[in-house]
Amino acid sequence: MGKMIPASHMDLFEKRAVASLATLMPSGCPQVTPVWVMYTEPYVIVNSAVGRVKDRNMRRDARVAIEVRDPGNPYRYVTVQGLVVEITEEGARDVINALSDKYLGQPVYGGPPDETRVTYKILPQRVHVSG
Amino acid sequence: MGKMIPASHMDLFEKRAVASLATLMPSGCPQVTPVWVMYTEPYVIVNSAVGRVKDRNMRRDARVAIEVRDPGNPYRYVTVQGLVVEITEEGARDVINALSDKYLGQPVYGGPPDETRVTYKILPQRVHVSG
Repeated sequence: MGKMIPASHMDLFEKRAVASLATLMPSGCPQVTPVWVMYTEPYVIVNSAVGRVKDRNMRRDARVAIEVRDPGNPYRYVTVQGLVVEITEEGARDVINALSDKYLGQPVYGGPPDETRVTYKILPQRVHVSG
Repeated sequence: MGKMIPASHMDLFEKRAVASLATLMPSGCPQVTPVWVMYTEPYVIVNSAVGRVKDRNMRRDARVAIEVRDPGNPYRYVTVQGLVVEITEEGARDVINALSDKYLGQPVYGGPPDETRVTYKILPQRVHVSG
């Protein structure tokens, strides 16, 4: 079972709040990078492309952390420690298009059309909110 | 030897850009949290208080990652993988006051006066910039 995102901070996933995703390098050291994010209860959803650092990291080690911060107030945020419970290419182009629409207002993602998009479903294990 | 922050992105440390700090939990899983940050070549400097999760994490495992993003453009950022090479209480109250001044315009930090502030000097090992 995962932990829920509190209703008080669910709006952060509706805003154009670029999240920060921490993954683990092969050595076990953390890496952090901005990502588009959505919440489809009970999963935090991110999307990347095959071969990227975070793709390789999440395939190797499912343990991740995510921070989503209110663009209008940096002291209001939700942080999650979670596990990548599913990695799939199925529907991943639809997901990146949905994210592009959310963040850029562009319903078709403008990145390379030939890259293999991947969706990662993250089940929160710990959730902390502030502000 | 550490890696330098490129001059092209040094301004991110002058802006009121709240950073995201990833540390490692006892289990080795990542944790990410917002932090105030400054750059004093060659160190990325953060400040916390004794006993907090990130304090305990950085004392246990020196490996951290930091993302600093342009408040005016979320696609312009610097990410760092680094090592905490020094943890000190010396001058730590001055550092948190300087950070309070930078981020809030309040030259005296408004947090609990009786907590023990701590400064962490992070030496970048890998630096990536975007935008």
